[in-house]
Amino acid sequence: MDYKFSSKVLALKPNAIREILKSASDKDVISLSAGNPAPDAFPIRAIREISERILKETPVSVLQYGVSEGYAPFIAELKQFVKERYGAINYDDELIVVSGAQQVMDISAKTFLNEGDVIICESPSFVGSLNTFRSYNAELVGVPVEQDGMNMEMLEKALKKNKNAKMIYTIPNFQNPSGTTMSLQKRKQLYDLAQKYDVMIIEDNPYGDLRYFGESIPCIKSFDTDGRVIYSGSFSKVVAPGIRVGFMVANENAMKKMIICKQGQDVHTTMWSQMICYEFLKNYDFEAHVENLCGIYRKKASLCMELLDRYVVPTGITYRKIDGGLFIWCDMPKGHDMMSFCRELTKRKVCVVPGNAFLPQDGECNSFRINFSTPTDEQLIKGIEIMGDFAKEYFR
Amino acid sequence: MDYKFSSKVLALKPNAIREILKSASDKDVISLSAGNPAPDAFPIRAIREISERILKETPVSVLQYGVSEGYAPFIAELKQFVKERYGAINYDDELIVVSGAQQVMDISAKTFLNEGDVIICESPSFVGSLNTFRSYNAELVGVPVEQDGMNMEMLEKALKKNKNAKMIYTIPNFQNPSGTTMSLQKRKQLYDLAQKYDVMIIEDNPYGDLRYFGESIPCIKSFDTDGRVIYSGSFSKVVAPGIRVGFMVANENAMKKMIICKQGQDVHTTMWSQMICYEFLKNYDFEAHVENLCGIYRKKASLCMELLDRYVVPTGITYRKIDGGLFIWCDMPKGHDMMSFCRELTKRKVCVVPGNAFLPQDGECNSFRINFSTPTDEQLIKGIEIMGDFAKEYFR
Repeated sequence: MDYKFSSKVLALKPNAIREILKSASDKDVISLSAGNPAPDAFPIRAIREISERILKETPVSVLQYGVSEGYAPFIAELKQFVKERYGAINYDDELIVVSGAQQVMDISAKTFLNEGDVIICESPSFVGSLNTFRSYNAELVGVPVEQDGMNMEMLEKALKKNKNAKMIYTIPNFQNPSGTTMSLQKRKQLYDLAQKYDVMIIEDNPYGDLRYFGESIPCIKSFDTDGRVIYSGSFSKVVAPGIRVGFMVANENAMKKMIICKQGQDVHTTMWSQMICYEFLKNYDFEAHVENLCGIYRKKASLCMELLDRYVVPTGITYRKIDGGLFIWCDMPKGHDMMSFCRELTKRKVCVVPGNAFLPQDGECNSFRINFSTPTDEQLIKGIEIMGDFAKEYFR
Repeated sequence: MDYKFSSKVLALKPNAIREILKSASDKDVISLSAGNPAPDAFPIRAIREISERILKETPVSVLQYGVSEGYAPFIAELKQFVKERYGAINYDDELIVVSGAQQVMDISAKTFLNEGDVIICESPSFVGSLNTFRSYNAELVGVPVEQDGMNMEMLEKALKKNKNAKMIYTIPNFQNPSGTTMSLQKRKQLYDLAQKYDVMIIEDNPYGDLRYFGESIPCIKSFDTDGRVIYSGSFSKVVAPGIRVGFMVANENAMKKMIICKQGQDVHTTMWSQMICYEFLKNYDFEAHVENLCGIYRKKASLCMELLDRYVVPTGITYRKIDGGLFIWCDMPKGHDMMSFCRELTKRKVCVVPGNAFLPQDGECNSFRINFSTPTDEQLIKGIEIMGDFAKEYFR
């Protein structure tokens, strides 16, 4: 039959990164294009222990239906965790468990955006979230990201211009893909602007615990006095992504609607995954685990930046220094075509992600994204050497 | 702040059943209101064995990101399974794994329904699906369910009247809540009408394997020549609901959009859950497990109907005989208020679900739903005795 798709999904196209990742799945290719945590960062032994215990001691709780809000002991534990660790929960906030932070984006968009409403996004930003917003036929308006976060003048301009702006979407810590972190001053400015123009904020913080250098900065939710911020947390980077567990904090009145949306999507998050995270937070040394993780990634991040300094920067490509997260953003010298560079590099068996995949709106992009968490050190060294050699040749 | 919710979610209210289930969580209450599979029906030993093995042998596959379509070996296995078991997949169909069949309803509604579009539903029908359709601001139009399925004259009338009808939603086997099964003739009629009025069909089949009496009937998808049917399958009733695994079969062109929607919701379904189902299908005797399940439920269903015949039918309440599934639908004698009956019964510590919770549109309802899979035999006996005694007193 001739399908009559809804106006929401009519223009939807598959995620461009997925197509690139397909060529990266070739075994000879060195992939600097993924966003996967390092497999040796997974707490495999702990997960195995917990899994065996819960399936032995309380199998029916693992296998029976749960409630949409999440496993009650886990919610209680998480509230404490979020309060102590990030100060990201206020007295009139609720916290629910979600099936990965991606679901926070979906539910928030569904609850607050009509078709054609504007959501202001960092440019560049995480393509997964952008695509979710697009899937509700929202209009995405990009505001450039600088080394210390969104450009605030341009943010205000965008808010002033777009009367139907309803939300601002931000990843303040070690942003994907730019690697940048928003300064405290800008976080406060952003909140003030959201108040002034009466819009919501989605604060997406999947990488917040992965700080390798410098001091952590309070999250925007911690100074949310009027229930304007939806805070999204994830266990994908600090426990494991395959278990699909995240959480969301929002004002209880907003949350009521969002719980119904969550319920309509998947009834509840897999019980096994919730119980693994719960037990891990409660009975294992989460702090030590995160320190260990950061140790692994700090080394990899340092190695990656050293290699870039040695092999790539001399060719004219620049990159933004990072304090944490999993990604480094590289800028091509002016006058060179980024897409053709990335394509040619793939032929040399090194795969990066062309930056235009991360743009909220169509436009020029002269950058590409590198990931250093998935490749081995050997692959990083070889991959960036190849990149440097090729760039030298390409820019000549 | 003063929330401006999207028009989609503005009228959403929490699921009425959930409120009733709250009183059912009182330990003294005999709950005939749940929809949970019997805990002794879970293949606990197999799940424990599989879990231990996969976490030992391939922990990284269990914990790392997967693809949105699902775990590739599981998809291959499922395609075979669906083909052999139900004939519910054609050459130009695709199959993807979802996080419970609920997600099929969400994704299908999102992909095919604009706000205000009509989806025709059985009346009564599964409230979880109805609420999902409502969450996209679709208009629900109900068509009465008879002992052999939807009333076909009224279905055609509804299709004729509602020019913006886009889909028909049906649970042909052991429908929740009415317990009825659609005849083969009506399945064919329904498909013909869908062709005639050019609408899609969502065929929801979570209970199809739970047949205790009589012969199974071909699913509607099996005679879908023009990619009109979205088939939804679930492992909640035949493996376990807490793992959140279902699957969806649809024409490849429709599926492309639906995969993007799935991706935007939860990236992919929990890997552990997928691998448990995969290994269970592949390496265990699924057929014997289902037979065992049906043995447990056949006894419970027979007991429940016997008890109703003995204690409840003599009071004037009637019920519809079932061939499978988990639910029995009871009709009050004319002139009595069902809601007040259910409320009073709850005070006597027996909990059923008032039938109006299952109506697609506001209206009168004189029925209530009983579940027999969750209570123990002792609870069933006691609960239905109490119901009979109370009904005798109430109708006097």
